[in-house]
Amino acid sequence: MTALDAVSIITTKRDGGELSDAQIDWVVDAFTRGEVADEQMSALAMAIVWRGMTRHETARWTAAMIASGSRMDFTDLPRPTVDKHSTGGVGDKITLPLAPLVAACGAAVPQLSGRGLGHTGGTLDKLESIPGWRADVSVARMREILTDPAIGAVVCAAGADLAPADKRLYALRDVTGTVESIPLIASSIMSKKIAEGTAALVLDVKVGSGAFLKTLDGARELASAMVGLGTDSGVRTVALLTAMDTPLGDTAGNALEVAESVRVLAGGGPADVVELTVTLAREMVAAAGIDIDPADVLADGRAMDHWRAMVRAQGGDPDAALPKARHTETLRAERDGVLTRLDAMGVGIAAWRLGAGRVRQGEPVQFGAGVEMHAKPGDPVSAGQPLLTLHTDTPETFPGAVAALADAYAIGTEAPARVPLVLDRIGNS
Amino acid sequence: MTALDAVSIITTKRDGGELSDAQIDWVVDAFTRGEVADEQMSALAMAIVWRGMTRHETARWTAAMIASGSRMDFTDLPRPTVDKHSTGGVGDKITLPLAPLVAACGAAVPQLSGRGLGHTGGTLDKLESIPGWRADVSVARMREILTDPAIGAVVCAAGADLAPADKRLYALRDVTGTVESIPLIASSIMSKKIAEGTAALVLDVKVGSGAFLKTLDGARELASAMVGLGTDSGVRTVALLTAMDTPLGDTAGNALEVAESVRVLAGGGPADVVELTVTLAREMVAAAGIDIDPADVLADGRAMDHWRAMVRAQGGDPDAALPKARHTETLRAERDGVLTRLDAMGVGIAAWRLGAGRVRQGEPVQFGAGVEMHAKPGDPVSAGQPLLTLHTDTPETFPGAVAALADAYAIGTEAPARVPLVLDRIGNS
Repeated sequence: MTALDAVSIITTKRDGGELSDAQIDWVVDAFTRGEVADEQMSALAMAIVWRGMTRHETARWTAAMIASGSRMDFTDLPRPTVDKHSTGGVGDKITLPLAPLVAACGAAVPQLSGRGLGHTGGTLDKLESIPGWRADVSVARMREILTDPAIGAVVCAAGADLAPADKRLYALRDVTGTVESIPLIASSIMSKKIAEGTAALVLDVKVGSGAFLKTLDGARELASAMVGLGTDSGVRTVALLTAMDTPLGDTAGNALEVAESVRVLAGGGPADVVELTVTLAREMVAAAGIDIDPADVLADGRAMDHWRAMVRAQGGDPDAALPKARHTETLRAERDGVLTRLDAMGVGIAAWRLGAGRVRQGEPVQFGAGVEMHAKPGDPVSAGQPLLTLHTDTPETFPGAVAALADAYAIGTEAPARVPLVLDRIGNS
Repeated sequence: MTALDAVSIITTKRDGGELSDAQIDWVVDAFTRGEVADEQMSALAMAIVWRGMTRHETARWTAAMIASGSRMDFTDLPRPTVDKHSTGGVGDKITLPLAPLVAACGAAVPQLSGRGLGHTGGTLDKLESIPGWRADVSVARMREILTDPAIGAVVCAAGADLAPADKRLYALRDVTGTVESIPLIASSIMSKKIAEGTAALVLDVKVGSGAFLKTLDGARELASAMVGLGTDSGVRTVALLTAMDTPLGDTAGNALEVAESVRVLAGGGPADVVELTVTLAREMVAAAGIDIDPADVLADGRAMDHWRAMVRAQGGDPDAALPKARHTETLRAERDGVLTRLDAMGVGIAAWRLGAGRVRQGEPVQFGAGVEMHAKPGDPVSAGQPLLTLHTDTPETFPGAVAALADAYAIGTEAPARVPLVLDRIGNS
């Protein structure tokens, strides 16, 4: 019988041992109740960064996180539920066209989403740039929206009762250098997604300079851990590994990305955003057991109808003008050639510094701020043509943004090799 | 230029890097000021348990701990200062006869000591069993005692201003499973000893079942780290590695050990206590540059004179009767033979459970409680003779103490091989 006290649990993991089910259940519950102190949990988190967790430990840890709050149940809805989660990238507005597209295909999409921190934007920040749109939706109203065949998708903030232990632990890991642990990242994401009550889940695991995971091996490890956790919890889960060396689409920012998403829903928009939206929609529709090609539903305008209904259902006006930044500055090509590189991290940091992101949780963001990209790698450019337009309400941020972009792009003579957007797929079917 | 913020310092160490001087100075100072939170420091401590610290990092860490408070200065005393520190063992009352013996040899012994926690007793707890004796002594009074040729030794509690960062960090490590780190243990001990202003220091590093360090290799590593830190700070430092598989002497407890120490000062007492006292005294006297054999000073009663003066200087009455426990229970030999084993950890835990030690800081201890040993390994025993007498004011603790002793001793037919008390010596001279 292993002892149920914080120090013995910490030292078990510190010394490379496997935590028992009872130890995991106790420590997560005692942390939630405040009996295990923050300084004890952060030491345990560092020991987990060091020693890792087995698949069994990670599954139990995830279950304990879910059990710290309430689990939503949408099994009685008239349509199959399916959701998507992205690990975060620059210009990753995919949820915006994707959720209404999949809803238009006949699935219900209950997405509890987050706000941005650091160089990757948050989906809620983007949607909040739509005048009137609100992220707080009650569970009863979620159910109504998901049941309505004309809407079928809701993107909202998670309630305080959804995996509260994970919320506390995540805030703690953020300030204690213990974010970088595959089992802790996997259980943090999956505890929230399993608790939100979706029957199927498609994961978009980003790999590259602008993503948390820089290597394909690391991304595969995280994707496998998450697919395992979802599958073990009865959620049909598939992961795509997708490239994030270059920003997605032509914009990084809040209102800028909403406008781009609307272009995609209208049948236009950048090719990479359209490709990823349709690819993820096919996975989601298949996971939901619906036999339809989302490309057709995007093409015939039904996805746009659902977008407009979805925005209205949360108080937003889909016809209102989007916020615009008061100041712009344009970076131009210094010479003729071809754009060989446009680094996601550089663009992400520039958008963040311009005011599109926040430094600390709870800070406001500038809805109009961000970076507009006039060329992507492979495009020919001529000397003097605009490459990047920076948008902000606070022009004192221009020098910092320009500095972040200084080494973020290159003009050469030969087009770079095309990198596929989808690098791998991990899942059972 | 490395960033001076808690997360980047934690991740530097987490990823196996070496902390810069600026990072160490900043993090210790910011922790002392409360700017670095407990949960950040405990994560850093776990990263240090994981990755270790170089000799340079450990020295800088120790210097930062010292700089968090004030450093005492006894260089103007008329006699050379020298101190001893033990890493803690069962029945380790050596400071009690040693400090007055070395003072009687002509050195000044300024010992800032601690109270016990867990199975090893604390020197201050032992001395506090002497009626009237007080552990709190002002710096001015310390100086008077050390200057007085008839006293010359003071054993007292460290003031709040002595390495306060170490006090906070130690309390934090105790509850976060981060005690077991050689660089952190070495810097914790040495920061206090260097700050106390002694010019020379002899370390008694315990090795064996009753000690924190179970192996000679681990003890050598800790001893080398501490000798290095002392030497680099201008303190002449030597370490002896001494055996702690069996308790020292015939008693483990508070008043019981004071009485045993007085027997040693009177020219009697157990051979191992006399041997270790004289051996450590020779090292201390040599480190202080005094040419005298402490064995003579012990034999002719001068050490006893200094003991009595030292007790009186801190308000104690050396002639008062010592506290006695109200209840005793005796364990007897089941058969004839020779005692082959008497485990220090078992005896330590028994004494602790009987009330000689505490579970939490700040709790009182029972002065009369403890274990009296009537035979030591190698001694012949006959069936029915007393082996161990347990002392306590709380007889409900007898079963727990007896249980701790159940596997702690063995009676065989052949005497075990004699283990030398001093296993190794680490130092420059």
